[in-house]
Amino acid sequence: MTHDTVITGARVVTASGTTHCDIGITDGRIAALGKDLQGEHVIDGHGLIALPGGIDSHVHISQPSGPGIEMADDFTSGTRSAACGGNTTVLPFCLPEEGRTLREAVADYRAKADGNCMTDVSFHLIVKDTDPVTLGQDLPALIQAGYTSFKVFMTYAGLALSDRQILEVMAVAKEQGAMVMVHAENEDAIEFLRDRADRNGETAPYHHATTRPVPVEREATHRAISLAEIAGVPLTIVHVSNGEATEEIVRARQRGLTVFAETCPQYITLTASDLDRDGFDGAKYVCSPPPRTAEEWPKIWAGIEQGTFDLFSSDHCPFRFNDPAGKDAPGARQSFRNIPNGIPGVETRLPILFSEGVVKGRLSLERFAAITATNHARLYGLFPRKGAIMVGADADIALWDPTLSKPIRQADLHHGSDYTPWEGFEVTGWPVRTILRGQTVMQNGDPVGAPSGSYLEREAPDLLL
Amino acid sequence: MTHDTVITGARVVTASGTTHCDIGITDGRIAALGKDLQGEHVIDGHGLIALPGGIDSHVHISQPSGPGIEMADDFTSGTRSAACGGNTTVLPFCLPEEGRTLREAVADYRAKADGNCMTDVSFHLIVKDTDPVTLGQDLPALIQAGYTSFKVFMTYAGLALSDRQILEVMAVAKEQGAMVMVHAENEDAIEFLRDRADRNGETAPYHHATTRPVPVEREATHRAISLAEIAGVPLTIVHVSNGEATEEIVRARQRGLTVFAETCPQYITLTASDLDRDGFDGAKYVCSPPPRTAEEWPKIWAGIEQGTFDLFSSDHCPFRFNDPAGKDAPGARQSFRNIPNGIPGVETRLPILFSEGVVKGRLSLERFAAITATNHARLYGLFPRKGAIMVGADADIALWDPTLSKPIRQADLHHGSDYTPWEGFEVTGWPVRTILRGQTVMQNGDPVGAPSGSYLEREAPDLLL
Amino acid sequence: MTHDTVITGARVVTASGTTHCDIGITDGRIAALGKDLQGEHVIDGHGLIALPGGIDSHVHISQPSGPGIEMADDFTSGTRSAACGGNTTVLPFCLPEEGRTLREAVADYRAKADGNCMTDVSFHLIVKDTDPVTLGQDLPALIQAGYTSFKVFMTYAGLALSDRQILEVMAVAKEQGAMVMVHAENEDAIEFLRDRADRNGETAPYHHATTRPVPVEREATHRAISLAEIAGVPLTIVHVSNGEATEEIVRARQRGLTVFAETCPQYITLTASDLDRDGFDGAKYVCSPPPRTAEEWPKIWAGIEQGTFDLFSSDHCPFRFNDPAGKDAPGARQSFRNIPNGIPGVETRLPILFSEGVVKGRLSLERFAAITATNHARLYGLFPRKGAIMVGADADIALWDPTLSKPIRQADLHHGSDYTPWEGFEVTGWPVRTILRGQTVMQNGDPVGAPSGSYLEREAPDLLL
Amino acid sequence: MTHDTVITGARVVTASGTTHCDIGITDGRIAALGKDLQGEHVIDGHGLIALPGGIDSHVHISQPSGPGIEMADDFTSGTRSAACGGNTTVLPFCLPEEGRTLREAVADYRAKADGNCMTDVSFHLIVKDTDPVTLGQDLPALIQAGYTSFKVFMTYAGLALSDRQILEVMAVAKEQGAMVMVHAENEDAIEFLRDRADRNGETAPYHHATTRPVPVEREATHRAISLAEIAGVPLTIVHVSNGEATEEIVRARQRGLTVFAETCPQYITLTASDLDRDGFDGAKYVCSPPPRTAEEWPKIWAGIEQGTFDLFSSDHCPFRFNDPAGKDAPGARQSFRNIPNGIPGVETRLPILFSEGVVKGRLSLERFAAITATNHARLYGLFPRKGAIMVGADADIALWDPTLSKPIRQADLHHGSDYTPWEGFEVTGWPVRTILRGQTVMQNGDPVGAPSGSYLEREAPDLLL
Repeated sequence: MTHDTVITGARVVTASGTTHCDIGITDGRIAALGKDLQGEHVIDGHGLIALPGGIDSHVHISQPSGPGIEMADDFTSGTRSAACGGNTTVLPFCLPEEGRTLREAVADYRAKADGNCMTDVSFHLIVKDTDPVTLGQDLPALIQAGYTSFKVFMTYAGLALSDRQILEVMAVAKEQGAMVMVHAENEDAIEFLRDRADRNGETAPYHHATTRPVPVEREATHRAISLAEIAGVPLTIVHVSNGEATEEIVRARQRGLTVFAETCPQYITLTASDLDRDGFDGAKYVCSPPPRTAEEWPKIWAGIEQGTFDLFSSDHCPFRFNDPAGKDAPGARQSFRNIPNGIPGVETRLPILFSEGVVKGRLSLERFAAITATNHARLYGLFPRKGAIMVGADADIALWDPTLSKPIRQADLHHGSDYTPWEGFEVTGWPVRTILRGQTVMQNGDPVGAPSGSYLEREAPDLLL
Repeated sequence: MTHDTVITGARVVTASGTTHCDIGITDGRIAALGKDLQGEHVIDGHGLIALPGGIDSHVHISQPSGPGIEMADDFTSGTRSAACGGNTTVLPFCLPEEGRTLREAVADYRAKADGNCMTDVSFHLIVKDTDPVTLGQDLPALIQAGYTSFKVFMTYAGLALSDRQILEVMAVAKEQGAMVMVHAENEDAIEFLRDRADRNGETAPYHHATTRPVPVEREATHRAISLAEIAGVPLTIVHVSNGEATEEIVRARQRGLTVFAETCPQYITLTASDLDRDGFDGAKYVCSPPPRTAEEWPKIWAGIEQGTFDLFSSDHCPFRFNDPAGKDAPGARQSFRNIPNGIPGVETRLPILFSEGVVKGRLSLERFAAITATNHARLYGLFPRKGAIMVGADADIALWDPTLSKPIRQADLHHGSDYTPWEGFEVTGWPVRTILRGQTVMQNGDPVGAPSGSYLEREAPDLLL
Repeated sequence: MTHDTVITGARVVTASGTTHCDIGITDGRIAALGKDLQGEHVIDGHGLIALPGGIDSHVHISQPSGPGIEMADDFTSGTRSAACGGNTTVLPFCLPEEGRTLREAVADYRAKADGNCMTDVSFHLIVKDTDPVTLGQDLPALIQAGYTSFKVFMTYAGLALSDRQILEVMAVAKEQGAMVMVHAENEDAIEFLRDRADRNGETAPYHHATTRPVPVEREATHRAISLAEIAGVPLTIVHVSNGEATEEIVRARQRGLTVFAETCPQYITLTASDLDRDGFDGAKYVCSPPPRTAEEWPKIWAGIEQGTFDLFSSDHCPFRFNDPAGKDAPGARQSFRNIPNGIPGVETRLPILFSEGVVKGRLSLERFAAITATNHARLYGLFPRKGAIMVGADADIALWDPTLSKPIRQADLHHGSDYTPWEGFEVTGWPVRTILRGQTVMQNGDPVGAPSGSYLEREAPDLLL
Repeated sequence: MTHDTVITGARVVTASGTTHCDIGITDGRIAALGKDLQGEHVIDGHGLIALPGGIDSHVHISQPSGPGIEMADDFTSGTRSAACGGNTTVLPFCLPEEGRTLREAVADYRAKADGNCMTDVSFHLIVKDTDPVTLGQDLPALIQAGYTSFKVFMTYAGLALSDRQILEVMAVAKEQGAMVMVHAENEDAIEFLRDRADRNGETAPYHHATTRPVPVEREATHRAISLAEIAGVPLTIVHVSNGEATEEIVRARQRGLTVFAETCPQYITLTASDLDRDGFDGAKYVCSPPPRTAEEWPKIWAGIEQGTFDLFSSDHCPFRFNDPAGKDAPGARQSFRNIPNGIPGVETRLPILFSEGVVKGRLSLERFAAITATNHARLYGLFPRKGAIMVGADADIALWDPTLSKPIRQADLHHGSDYTPWEGFEVTGWPVRTILRGQTVMQNGDPVGAPSGSYLEREAPDLLL
């Protein structure tokens, strides 16, 4: 049998192990793994590592971000950046604009994405309204239609739900078999601290961090877990930033609860003092939860190494720095409250983890594959089509050169932001080719070809990772 | 390309996922995974699940067991039983008889195994002597020769090492990159309790359990971990039986230590009150650590589900019941101290976990594969040759019928024991064919063909599971 | 010197120890401890134990309890019952009725108490409004005037404060040096569960317990502690009912926080199944948090014995059973939501703890004195005037007969309720005389004399118990 | 009534509270507490604090310390130093010299003490032999005779007992109702590390600390607790130095075990880097367990403040620095193994805790009294005669000037050592008079009068502190 394409000679990684073999691709799917496979096109993988294409299940693209504030990435640039960072699927969040229903928002958002994507995409929902139509009709219908995960917020005015609302949403998730994701920070406590900071004239970017201290996140984490326990649903805690919150998750599991957890590059490489950088550069690091102290890094690493964290995502939420509505806008200078909240990272997530985790000996290649692709696919209902290099799956593959060393540079990235928080960060190991359903979409760091990404409908979450 | 053998149509499981594809086998290795593969021989896998052949890394075969006490399995029967239970590799322990060096013991033991095995085998060592020749010459040489793991005992007269001895052995492991396994029970405390039981006339089998209570194991677990921390080595705790010992392992990992853990079927299905069965039947359940109460089962399950346990082994240690040197011998009736200590289980390990774990929805097939095969291969240096269905690996495969329901019956088993502790235990899901390096060694519960098992040299342990 | 009164020959208990000596009382204060003291009046204490008069810092008297619902005790009966139970001081809560300010409520409440009390009294405040006048003027002024502690509720419609409100109240406490007490149950979760119970037709008293499960209290406990951590204030968690909430307190202290904790008789003697008693008798046990399972009792005892609990109070909140507005009213029969919420206990608190704790060997007399009197006095600013038998303190003394055995019987009690939850509960050790500032107010179980209780102004809390 | 002596006007502290009153002393006992007491002799206490005389339950005096090594204090100097530090009772350890039985050792030791003491004394035993005569006859007889507590060692060649021996000793304690104290460090691990240090040429005093790291103590603490759990006895862990060992104690109590704990001044004021001081001065800080890092101090303080630590003792174990057999002897310079192991501290224990604890606002006076006197008396069977200022107790009182500030200086101390580890340490609050059974034995820092200390027989331990 002659395949459309054969990748020869690479070290092929799946969560089960690493082996040297050829990968035969036909009709956009992996048709064979073997020796001496034949193909019309041959990609030479010798010296490279073939990993499942990255799945970034926590990105924000073209999302409404407050009056006059523009997110720096639309689907064109966001998925281009993702593809260039070794990803083949991203899961952005669909947030209804004021006055739009969840169903309308999904339609709007699909329209924005269609035809513009260089990776496959699928949407999580954000549930911010809990009226009877939303909870009784729209949300169940959307779950049935394959939107099988959604996020609730415990912070941000206009987004934050009360405990009662979260429980009502969880009840729908339970009935429909969907996955609830939670952003766990205590809104009331943050507002209390922000008002105090206002009174004290503490307006600099650094106070974004001081007004969201660790107990604010640990409390909300414990509470979210308790609500899930009361509602009887599994739960995913996203972007865990510190050791105390991690400990809450470990304790919940010891009580027998089903809790999944995600962390991000910023929590093993950045600190709150980055928000205190000279000039107004601290604004470039404003995101929530904020980076903590370096003492928290080994606690997050321990959680990555020991399986506390199932998911490693970017929480890509890009804004420009030099922009009338950007991080250095006049209003932002007036108060950290007005700094657009989020950092770009979809393109740098995988190289940072590969370099800090795999190359430095903390992670096996298999575990890298699991927390950057396989677990995302399983937990969010994309498996077995996505997330692993195996016969029958989509031929979503990233080829990595494990010896390529170069620093992260804004000049080399493809997102819509005008900066990267990791400027100059030294990385060993980069993806050199990204293949989406058999087609090369990135080579040597540059995007290749026209947008060919599809929208993915999803199954129910797989809870047995 | 035409393979020697092709398995068609099975659901193929690896730790990364499950897919439907054919498996092409050539020269005893997996040569291809794909669709419509061609082979001289075809095995119809439709309706079956193809799992990596089980690796049981904790079995005792033909091991000296005290004066006049015969272990019920030699390599012929032990590996036959293993193969019939879906295993393709077993790792028994090599224990020097009195007066023999470790090197001599290895030679003796190799001689017993050679030509008699129906699975592949490799030996762990048991280190009971810590003289300069053993630690300075024999052990390093054996590690270099591929005996890269060894067990130390904290209990049993004649086997138990002092803390100092354990540290000296760990220092060798550190220097040589070998893995230390530990049987964690406090010998002094057991002897104290046994002497007290003697004085109280408590001689029945049940007192085997009362004289080895949970704190005896928890203490030794904490101590073994502390010694490994002091020596600076990773550690594997074998046959963990209860929640408190499990908690010590979780806490050690939270402190950043590298600790692996194993549990066994007896700790999720049997209880101490089985040792109190009518007649002298309690003796059939005497093993160490003893089964605990049913309250401990969910704690062990939580550890299995959440990744605290890396390994699920049998601790197969078979004796006959009706036998002059067996569990119902006159001396055994006199005191539980004289009951041969251990239970058979190499043939029932996988069906029990499949039925209780996979069929009952606690475990994914992928995680089943990981803790019954892949992790054993990785941790004990057999990977990538063993432990996963992937191109290049040995074609060690078990085909399972997930719908086959029948109770465990001694009449159906192939070990040398004259009983099974699980007589009548209902199981859904049985292996129906075991394939060792491409050759069928079991079909429909019966052994097939002549012994073709080989001895496996091993690499250093892989610590990044 | 001749004292007004001398108590001779008793075993005198203080938190420092127990000794045999006479107590000389002059002008209502303890003037001397010694041998062979002389007094105009002599009380023979031989064979008796002299303990500090009990201080019950958690009672509800004449408190507004919802439309048409009357609390069963006014100050006359409530303090009479307290005195008969060995108490000399009670601290009820002052709750503003709808439309009244906190200052007005205090005046109203003082008027109700004045001249009617058989023990001394002092009020905690309940803060349910957080308008600028209350937080900016009234509360500070009241704290300055000696109302140095107040309670906030995390449950009950109309009382429950949001996290933000709690933080604002805590900020006042911090500025003024007052103590915040918290009733920790998650209102939203309870309402969610109650609505579900409604839909399921679960209206019986037992469902008062099922709709307030342990996680509801554990969550609120963790949250209250976190809010106190963020606000930077000490905190007192009242009426802790279970092991998980207790563990949160232990963990908070290990993090270095200043958290005090209280438990009550119902959490070591009653269970949720008491709410399931025949007829409608379950209503007699409706209180919040509800009694749990008997498995929680030893966890509460461990907390009492090991110092996790600083305070042992009654949470006396009395209602009548047979009464148009009582626990067996028609509305109550319709739904547990309408059952007046609370149980009587001010008279039985001390005998229950003495019998279960001291007589059964779990508690020393000194620790009994500490958690029933001394710690209450210290924490709530009544020390050194109250809480200990020492020279200079008020002569508030209870004489106990440690050998007197009799069951608790409603017929023997003096509260306004028409039942006791402990009917028939066997008790060994009863107070036989209560002395308030030198005057006997109870003898052999009967009240003596006219109400002579005073209102007590209080100092700032003493945090170094 | 006219007392022999009256102390007027002091703030009198007991564990229950602090009050202003006079103390009347007759026949060496406290006869009255009151106002305007009359006495033949009057001690003016105005401006002073009257605390129970300190009880130091962990001191070493005239103890055999290895070949040629002399302890720097005999009973004359040791108790003189104790009295000058505000103590009225000390409990040294009675250790049999090689070849002497425990009974003989007690007789020898009594002879050394008789007539030479300036405080009262009572002996703990050290059990180093577990032969049938010792365990079957001598130890029971001695317990019956009032030697109701004894220490076992888990470290030091010649002293360390095996786990089995410890269990046998605990069984005697259980039968006889005595208290077992344990020095918890893992001897085997220490010897392993010391031999490694030897091979590496690490001979300086600092390596005394590196060869006894925290896990060595944590492990032994967990083990000692486990042995007590298995034997069914309460246990006292002496000289706890760090947070991890403290956590083991908290966890044991949460499991319901009865465990008491002691810490010492060195663990809140000294660090391991003191052992690395210039010249050979590090030797002055060699003691076991060694001081840790300053990060451990707040963990020990938390344990003191929250009641984890019942006892605060000195572990006074004095040696001279400049002495042929002292800490700077030639052998000591050769290797830290030869440095006499211990530091002086009986005279500085109370001032350090008063200054760091009471004056700095961490401890109440009442809790200071409890952990420096009352608890020692209760736990070691000296209560109610000793440990509290109450009628009937011995008139053992220290008068403190809470405003007196001066540094600790060797020149001002009275022990036999030629240095103090706290030279120059600033202290506010010093005892200015020590009164033993009514007689002043120290005034303004100087000893007064002839030795009048008695030997104290003791009762069984009081487990309900």
